[in-house]
Amino acid sequence: MLDNISLLPLTAEVNQAGHLMVGGCDTVEISREYGTPLYIFDEFTIRRKCREYRAAFSECYPDSQVIYAAKAFLHGALARILMEEGLGIDVVSAGELGMVRKNQFPPSRVYCHGNNKSAEEIIGALEYGVGRIVVDNLYELAMLNEIASGKNQQADILLRLSPGVDAHTHQYITTGVIDSKFGITISDAEEAVAKAMAASHLNLVGFHSHIGSQISEIEPYQLAMELVRKFAAEMKIKHRFELRELNVGGGFAIQYTQNMPAPTIDYFARGIAGKLNGLCQELGLDLPHLTVEPGRAIVGQSGIALYRAGAIKNIPGVRRYVSVDGGMGDNIRTALYQAEYEAVVASNMQGKEKTTVTIAGKFCESGDILVRDISLPRIVAGDIIAIAAAGAYCLPMASNYNASFRPAIIMVTDGKARLIRRRETLDDLTNCDV
Amino acid sequence: MLDNISLLPLTAEVNQAGHLMVGGCDTVEISREYGTPLYIFDEFTIRRKCREYRAAFSECYPDSQVIYAAKAFLHGALARILMEEGLGIDVVSAGELGMVRKNQFPPSRVYCHGNNKSAEEIIGALEYGVGRIVVDNLYELAMLNEIASGKNQQADILLRLSPGVDAHTHQYITTGVIDSKFGITISDAEEAVAKAMAASHLNLVGFHSHIGSQISEIEPYQLAMELVRKFAAEMKIKHRFELRELNVGGGFAIQYTQNMPAPTIDYFARGIAGKLNGLCQELGLDLPHLTVEPGRAIVGQSGIALYRAGAIKNIPGVRRYVSVDGGMGDNIRTALYQAEYEAVVASNMQGKEKTTVTIAGKFCESGDILVRDISLPRIVAGDIIAIAAAGAYCLPMASNYNASFRPAIIMVTDGKARLIRRRETLDDLTNCDV
Repeated sequence: MLDNISLLPLTAEVNQAGHLMVGGCDTVEISREYGTPLYIFDEFTIRRKCREYRAAFSECYPDSQVIYAAKAFLHGALARILMEEGLGIDVVSAGELGMVRKNQFPPSRVYCHGNNKSAEEIIGALEYGVGRIVVDNLYELAMLNEIASGKNQQADILLRLSPGVDAHTHQYITTGVIDSKFGITISDAEEAVAKAMAASHLNLVGFHSHIGSQISEIEPYQLAMELVRKFAAEMKIKHRFELRELNVGGGFAIQYTQNMPAPTIDYFARGIAGKLNGLCQELGLDLPHLTVEPGRAIVGQSGIALYRAGAIKNIPGVRRYVSVDGGMGDNIRTALYQAEYEAVVASNMQGKEKTTVTIAGKFCESGDILVRDISLPRIVAGDIIAIAAAGAYCLPMASNYNASFRPAIIMVTDGKARLIRRRETLDDLTNCDV
Repeated sequence: MLDNISLLPLTAEVNQAGHLMVGGCDTVEISREYGTPLYIFDEFTIRRKCREYRAAFSECYPDSQVIYAAKAFLHGALARILMEEGLGIDVVSAGELGMVRKNQFPPSRVYCHGNNKSAEEIIGALEYGVGRIVVDNLYELAMLNEIASGKNQQADILLRLSPGVDAHTHQYITTGVIDSKFGITISDAEEAVAKAMAASHLNLVGFHSHIGSQISEIEPYQLAMELVRKFAAEMKIKHRFELRELNVGGGFAIQYTQNMPAPTIDYFARGIAGKLNGLCQELGLDLPHLTVEPGRAIVGQSGIALYRAGAIKNIPGVRRYVSVDGGMGDNIRTALYQAEYEAVVASNMQGKEKTTVTIAGKFCESGDILVRDISLPRIVAGDIIAIAAAGAYCLPMASNYNASFRPAIIMVTDGKARLIRRRETLDDLTNCDV
């Protein structure tokens, strides 16, 4: 009945008051209680996505593991869900590792990434005993071996390869191309393999590649896997290297708008598993452990952003602006990536009279627009507007631009709304000032 | 001698160790003491820019005032300098107003902006007794009058007009065009003037317009002034409105790179003052009080960002990446606006052997590049790299992306380095979590 409800969390429904419900909670009531802008995460959707990912991959490739990419969104409450659902977690900094440690996430399921890990970050990873360190470059390889040696520890590593695959996505989030700050190009990779195998305190378990973000096609993954698998076969012959793990990264697209559907999880799982099975058969090699690193695909749909409408400005024949109380401070993706979102009027889901509006933020930049030209029930000041698929890469990139206070976060489950992060205050903004 | 030293703070020099000095302090030593990434502000440069702006405008237009646009960067230490230098301050949110109040900035010199001010923000502004509220739209006009009436207070206001001038700048930062969330279009402006003059608790002092950011030409300012001044003259005839203040906004370009010089302050001051004098003479009208709102132009050049080089990756025939320990988390402008910066090797200013490098950040996105293809003295891991003209719009838009810790800030003056903001820690990141 409602066109865009499929973009919202899986528990989304409309109550008799015409309000958007998520996780059995009235989002308008929650907005009143906790204020806006407000982010709501639906626990059911997160758990469902975790299970779907695990099931889809283990069904077609039993020896596989799903590692959540923490950079999409990280919070203690989320870490505990991931733990319970049996996922691993991939971290890219001392901060992310610190948050994971605080929540006693099982170290063996922690993967450490980053193109420029500091010595302190490597020491932290070794001390926590993380499952894998994904080595990005030769500089890091040498530093890691030296640090591990000093600690008399063996580090299980993957080498991040840059297979030179262009995933045809937005240039900012394509990371597999040859001209990339990430990973070791195939031409340098033999040197890296030889050095890793010769290193006294490194245990080279396998390879990692990551080709980009918000990818809707299977072909770039398959192409990257082919390049990496064949390179591994060559290394087996030349260096007796055994590929025990292949990590194909993440980047699985989700649906943000009705006109841009995303493939199913099964599509990615079958395409990746099928290719890996085929490649190993063709090359006569053992099947490696397969790891995948979805981030957005786990949390994107579970989150919505709620805003309150304020000033409405009609420029006849040009555009009708509805300004809300958040914007590029809590969601920079529209300005940064020209990302497109859809919205609903959470306080008036069933309004019949529709108008085309542009939802603008309250930040002092013209680029601070959340949704352009969307047909919505007539909005008046005070209405609550919900942006769909706001669970990934909004809050982690949020700033205090314009001295704004970053939003509170609510987790909803079975009719209960729980504050998991309070809204910032002026004191938080100046807390580090001396 | 050094090509790009003119982009650095005015006190920049090179010491015998070949290190970059700012404000009489060795930036390499400061980096060692406080860690990196680190932002340094040079008090001398800030004060000089304040004085240059005041002098340039008052010389050619005595009844003028310089209002600093706080969104470019705001900190208590800066607020105190602005106070001492006699500038006003323009704020765009409850947070900015709160910071200004904390520092007891003279209320009469505070201007309140924003396209979607909340009732709470308006109440805060009235309670502090700010000099001007710049009313963006008719919705706000009515709300402000109602709130002021409830408080039995008179509010001195400017109306923000949207004169429909395209400043030929990046679309995100052009705010004067007719299709804008900001301001009242000229076609609606008469209604706004009539309502403001009829409002019981509003005192319409004048008009405001702001046509964009990083503008290098005087013509768009002059065109906007002409439209606004002529409209004011029409309103005088129709409504007996007296234009007592004209605020032409900010947006004055600064120089970021050698190949993009910016006009002098005098160029803007003379162009604006000359036009206003001419318009008033032509129309036979009194000269209004003139206000201008530079932000970037006051603090941009005063700030540098210091990073430590880590992994260096050479892709033969393609590019040489030097990864540093900050990036899009503390400076999103390169990814967001394709902003261009120049860098120097602060720890090796006089290195003769040069190579072309790309300075990449450590954030997990391919778009996290600070400077592309710049010729610099040979860099090794541990070198300190300084980005010039990093004083505006970097820290205010900084995020904790990748759970990064936002940088410490140092103010340097006469050989003394003073920490004005400490680096964030893991506890700061989870401080609001419940």
